[in-house]
Amino acid sequence: MANRPQEQVRGEGYLYEEIAQKFMRQIELGGLRPGEKLPSVRQLQAKLDVSPATVLQAYWLLESRNYIEARPQSGFYVSDGYRGLSPEPETSRPDLFARRVDIGRLAVAEFEAAGDPRLADLASARPGSALLPVKQLARLGAKICRTRSAEVISYSTPLGYAPLRKQLARRSIEWGGSLLPVEVVTVHGGMEALTLCLRAAAKPGAVIAVESPTYYGVLQIIESLGMLALEIPTHPKHGLSLPALYAAAKKHRIDACLFIPSFNNPLGSLMPDENKKELAAFVAKHSIPLIEDDICGELYFGHARPKTVKTYDRSGLVMLCSSFSKTVAPGYRVGWIAPGKFLEKVKQLRLMSSLVTVTLPQIVLADFMGTPGYDRHLRNLRRTLAVHCSSAAAAAARSFPRGTRISRPQGGIALWVELPARVNAASLKAAAFERGINFLPGLMFSAGKMYRNCLRLAYGQVWSPRIERAVATLGELATAK
Amino acid sequence: MANRPQEQVRGEGYLYEEIAQKFMRQIELGGLRPGEKLPSVRQLQAKLDVSPATVLQAYWLLESRNYIEARPQSGFYVSDGYRGLSPEPETSRPDLFARRVDIGRLAVAEFEAAGDPRLADLASARPGSALLPVKQLARLGAKICRTRSAEVISYSTPLGYAPLRKQLARRSIEWGGSLLPVEVVTVHGGMEALTLCLRAAAKPGAVIAVESPTYYGVLQIIESLGMLALEIPTHPKHGLSLPALYAAAKKHRIDACLFIPSFNNPLGSLMPDENKKELAAFVAKHSIPLIEDDICGELYFGHARPKTVKTYDRSGLVMLCSSFSKTVAPGYRVGWIAPGKFLEKVKQLRLMSSLVTVTLPQIVLADFMGTPGYDRHLRNLRRTLAVHCSSAAAAAARSFPRGTRISRPQGGIALWVELPARVNAASLKAAAFERGINFLPGLMFSAGKMYRNCLRLAYGQVWSPRIERAVATLGELATAK
Repeated sequence: MANRPQEQVRGEGYLYEEIAQKFMRQIELGGLRPGEKLPSVRQLQAKLDVSPATVLQAYWLLESRNYIEARPQSGFYVSDGYRGLSPEPETSRPDLFARRVDIGRLAVAEFEAAGDPRLADLASARPGSALLPVKQLARLGAKICRTRSAEVISYSTPLGYAPLRKQLARRSIEWGGSLLPVEVVTVHGGMEALTLCLRAAAKPGAVIAVESPTYYGVLQIIESLGMLALEIPTHPKHGLSLPALYAAAKKHRIDACLFIPSFNNPLGSLMPDENKKELAAFVAKHSIPLIEDDICGELYFGHARPKTVKTYDRSGLVMLCSSFSKTVAPGYRVGWIAPGKFLEKVKQLRLMSSLVTVTLPQIVLADFMGTPGYDRHLRNLRRTLAVHCSSAAAAAARSFPRGTRISRPQGGIALWVELPARVNAASLKAAAFERGINFLPGLMFSAGKMYRNCLRLAYGQVWSPRIERAVATLGELATAK
Repeated sequence: MANRPQEQVRGEGYLYEEIAQKFMRQIELGGLRPGEKLPSVRQLQAKLDVSPATVLQAYWLLESRNYIEARPQSGFYVSDGYRGLSPEPETSRPDLFARRVDIGRLAVAEFEAAGDPRLADLASARPGSALLPVKQLARLGAKICRTRSAEVISYSTPLGYAPLRKQLARRSIEWGGSLLPVEVVTVHGGMEALTLCLRAAAKPGAVIAVESPTYYGVLQIIESLGMLALEIPTHPKHGLSLPALYAAAKKHRIDACLFIPSFNNPLGSLMPDENKKELAAFVAKHSIPLIEDDICGELYFGHARPKTVKTYDRSGLVMLCSSFSKTVAPGYRVGWIAPGKFLEKVKQLRLMSSLVTVTLPQIVLADFMGTPGYDRHLRNLRRTLAVHCSSAAAAAARSFPRGTRISRPQGGIALWVELPARVNAASLKAAAFERGINFLPGLMFSAGKMYRNCLRLAYGQVWSPRIERAVATLGELATAK
């Protein structure tokens, strides 16, 4: 894929989705029934005159959405999983009140519990190491330690290791960007990226618009910098509500926005391209800096990498942030920023607060990105996460009480579950903990302590009978409440 | 040394310094004259009934202070270097006015130039990679990449990698501490350590007492956090003036102190133990948090590792910061904090701003600290830096204009040079730059833009004819001004 022209890939991409869509309609209308076998890859390829890869990708997409299942040594069969889909939650309704955040203590406790191997982990929204390219990185890392021994213990440059910035710039084409290496700064992971951007764009006391719900790390940073969070209504599938943002901007002074347009954590929502474009125009018109957290942008289940708001930014106000923590190696602590017009400020704040990024992981990542193994890994990871996503959704749909709503992520690493109003997710968490199960309660994802009957189910760990049982147990506990 | 009881080492330590002192007196009084040969190690060892190592250490100390020189295959000879010692600068006299800092832009430019290999580097106050244990780290790094491949790409725990914290706690005995591993947090290098401590201890607008001159990185952090710097008079040999601090505290509200008691950068000054003890009592009495930057604490040229203010702290107000950037590997980005009573706050701020420390370098460092190679490396590094220090001081004394004063560091990586008042170090820097020479001008080390006729000469690079010529050229340029 790395060596094929972009357009061709896109063309193929659209084709396999079209094929999948036709099967979906057939299955939904009963033209193909649960248990029925699909044509073999070879048969369908010959019939449609497409490549085997295109057929396989269509089948994988159907599989990831629970329409079909693969049976080893046999082929693909219509499953009945898709019937079990729960309704999605509706657009959130925060109170549009800018407020101080106070979730730091809670978040520290959660982070400490999240790594506990005794717990069935539905809490960590990152791929488990079994899903990561452990062997390739080990080989590259060992080689680089030996052959570039003096370089790896020396400082990297202020902007970060140049070949890595070159790779990131080159790949910006994939989301419709045209970054130059000098427009990219590498930093210490996604959290530092967001922190530096917020510090560059706003001062203590500033009002920061965020999605509701949003990643608790975003709320923590706002808390730690003494800023205020203004939660904006967000749809579980289409993301941030633009009309709601416009209304909020009329009522409030908004000093900066911090959004996760592609696969918001915890919702998994994806803003359509048109909305991203409109958002870029809005912030340009009102001169509001926008920090765009794109950390899950590579983890799409659809046919193509989603665009970013940055794609449409001509004002330089959009600061794109990402990291390798959700795709390659959380422990490497390498993130990056394309800070637009805030470049000098970010660079200076960065030097002032943490000097430079760790050298060795940057070299390993640059080398890895230069091999075909990188794209292969990302493809595998997307496919695996898509399967985990449907498995988790199906398991939750089977066991959670009537009235539960479950998001249908188009990418990312977590499901958002809205339980009936009577269920308190915090006490459910305590009960689950006793059964050796960990997840994050909804209230962590809101400055206004909303979402008490919601929870985030992360599906980054290898999908195993243990994890599946954990989801079932959670459902039983929730039903008993 | 690692396996011998602490007291015995100390005993030997005192002994070799006593021997060296006797030789110094003899040389200063003319009892031994330049060119005269000293007794061989074997002769002296037999005569004094001490170990050969003790004699060698005495000779190394004499050599580092320019009293004697080693001639290969021949022995040690009285040098005439010590006669060339310039007078030291006097205690600084800042104006005791708390002010906003504005050196960030300047510091960014300096940092970018500092790594330029085309320049003779008298600017970077860190050991060049030729002085670092490159091979050992390469071997350990490669092994750990291979054998602990899944661990190195995963998150470390919030406090940091436990075996590394254990090593740091164990070694706290060397500076008279008694840290437990749970009292130590690893962070992203020394700059993040200081930033987190300042954020934990004070708010924007707070007045922070600092030495004058002090490390520009300290001033940058104060700038970036919107705090004010209050410069306190400091002696080039004995460090911070306590009477001046007491006087300043009567005149000003001091919200926190940030001092570098052992080998202040740029002075190389060392606060005597009694002063450190008194300072600990002072901050306890007035409930002023003290951030102690001990990043050069291991780089002593004397007989024993200096104590810290933390050694005498019973209040929990002293937050000790250090890192491996000046001793093992700048590019590893591993620092640490013993934050006393601010532990929870530091931990929380840390998670909120950068999550966790990079995993692989922490494992390498913990393993390296567990080998005898670590102590051996530190001993070699100290000895080499001591020799660099006297070589740089001697070269500067030979070439700098009459009236120049030069500090006499007892440790660390830089000399502080006070030129005659007529010389402007900034224009000297521009002239030197054209000759391919880089150093830092004095005004970077002061919030009040003092020290315009001063400069910092770092001696962390391998002492070579090129570096020696660079110092001579600098002296000529300064004389011509």
